[in-house]
Amino acid sequence: MDRKVEIESYLNERRQLVETALAAALPPAEGPFHHHFEAMRYSLLVGGKRLRPILCLAAGEAVADSCRCHDTLLPVACALECIHTYSLIHDDLPAMDNDDLRRGKPTNHILFGEAGAILAGDGLLTWAFELLSRPSVSTGGYQLSDGRRLAIIHSIARAAGSQGMVGGQALDIATENSTFPFSVLETIHRSKTGALITASLHVGAIGAGASTEQTGQLLAYGEKLGLAFQIVDDLLNATSTTEALGKAAGSDSQRGKATYPAFFGVEQTRRLARQAVDEAITALAGFDQRAEPLRALAEYVFTRSH
Amino acid sequence: MDRKVEIESYLNERRQLVETALAAALPPAEGPFHHHFEAMRYSLLVGGKRLRPILCLAAGEAVADSCRCHDTLLPVACALECIHTYSLIHDDLPAMDNDDLRRGKPTNHILFGEAGAILAGDGLLTWAFELLSRPSVSTGGYQLSDGRRLAIIHSIARAAGSQGMVGGQALDIATENSTFPFSVLETIHRSKTGALITASLHVGAIGAGASTEQTGQLLAYGEKLGLAFQIVDDLLNATSTTEALGKAAGSDSQRGKATYPAFFGVEQTRRLARQAVDEAITALAGFDQRAEPLRALAEYVFTRSH
Repeated sequence: MDRKVEIESYLNERRQLVETALAAALPPAEGPFHHHFEAMRYSLLVGGKRLRPILCLAAGEAVADSCRCHDTLLPVACALECIHTYSLIHDDLPAMDNDDLRRGKPTNHILFGEAGAILAGDGLLTWAFELLSRPSVSTGGYQLSDGRRLAIIHSIARAAGSQGMVGGQALDIATENSTFPFSVLETIHRSKTGALITASLHVGAIGAGASTEQTGQLLAYGEKLGLAFQIVDDLLNATSTTEALGKAAGSDSQRGKATYPAFFGVEQTRRLARQAVDEAITALAGFDQRAEPLRALAEYVFTRSH
Repeated sequence: MDRKVEIESYLNERRQLVETALAAALPPAEGPFHHHFEAMRYSLLVGGKRLRPILCLAAGEAVADSCRCHDTLLPVACALECIHTYSLIHDDLPAMDNDDLRRGKPTNHILFGEAGAILAGDGLLTWAFELLSRPSVSTGGYQLSDGRRLAIIHSIARAAGSQGMVGGQALDIATENSTFPFSVLETIHRSKTGALITASLHVGAIGAGASTEQTGQLLAYGEKLGLAFQIVDDLLNATSTTEALGKAAGSDSQRGKATYPAFFGVEQTRRLARQAVDEAITALAGFDQRAEPLRALAEYVFTRSH
């Protein structure tokens, strides 16, 4: 079995684990708040790569047996996806990127209205912290100490918040149609996309009981992977089609957003993506074959077409 | 000194404590995300009754020495106000209640635009959990165990989320201009306003080390106080002026929102508010004079004019 087949099969298996956990992580759309839960469930369960949850599981697997860490990490993985999904719902709003399509399906506000979409996002963000602080999180096969659970909550709150994802989105919007140095683009990418990707690795490491050294290496991997992911995203937005992406292609340049291709051109951007992937893989040099999925994931980010 | 003067002076002192803590709880509007932090700081520091933080402190004071519990509870109190402020920013958005005025000042989206206001709200909500999970929360005069901190996070996440405040707001909006039974109004009030008020008492109790019995009594007080608060709010919206309220008066009936006065008329509504206040005070029968501020606060909610 070649490497590409192996990673596809790994991703499918982990994605299935995550999908099952996600479907159970939110209550069914019943009772007085059924409209609201329907809106949350729609965007959470409409599909997606589940990259952040899988990175969290894969980081745990790199330092501990998978059967020992999955029980502990699945609620954490679900929380990460709740936060990622909320950010997509809010980013797609008319007041933000005004996108009608996401993953080839109507965006949340198209189906549930603007107010419904704002609240679905608010609900998913808050639900993430409810999941992370829920007493039953610690009843898995591997007992997670209260201190580690607090560290996980703190890592995710920092990455998702105003000096991370939310701050990056605010800066992205504030700088639309303006000229700024490359360092600002780096800040936008690191905060808007990179922070939560890096946190996914970080909380996987914390949950699986990684050493300080292992945690540092996984964080270094996460930073380079996040960078590679965003560079490839810029590249796809510039070069792919709306059909292949499942969302509007070419929208970055239409909105006057600065991107890697705008700064460096397509060819040099592709080289920079390759370099970030190589550096991500190098960061894992101290790990044995249990980190193979993380190495393959870095290659996968580089070659993905949507 | 009569009771009214005493409670006013108590509220002023606690409000000052909270204002000082809030100003320090968010970083200054500097660095790459300064626009975003400016938007968050504006709404967080524009003023307000600070009811939820004060309830949290007062619950702690009812079971422990105030000097012992303030250090521990002030970050928790700030987190509650961050969440309350985010909910106001999002509720005021054009897609929701479309209010231009709040506390007599322009609402967040009037000053920072819709995207800026959505993100300021998202940022404040996330910041609350960052504050609650921050390692330094436990370095106060009274050491808070990791288990208690997790219980506080869980209580707040539940109250603020989809089966609490966010769910209540979603239901409130979904039922505008429609006819529904009184039980639905009760659900809206209990979730949209009551849940976070009750949680403010709950986390104050947890933080101060209340017994199970004390916690139960503070929760019962919180539920009745939350109900009284919302009934009075409905009453003020129906009978006061925009100038006195600092926000649009009469907006509930304009929007076709069901309210207590719409169901029961003004006189009967006032009696129901009085009854809820009496029941709140009765719930504290087991407490000594240290619960006096909570009793006075219940009276204060009944008599407040804005």
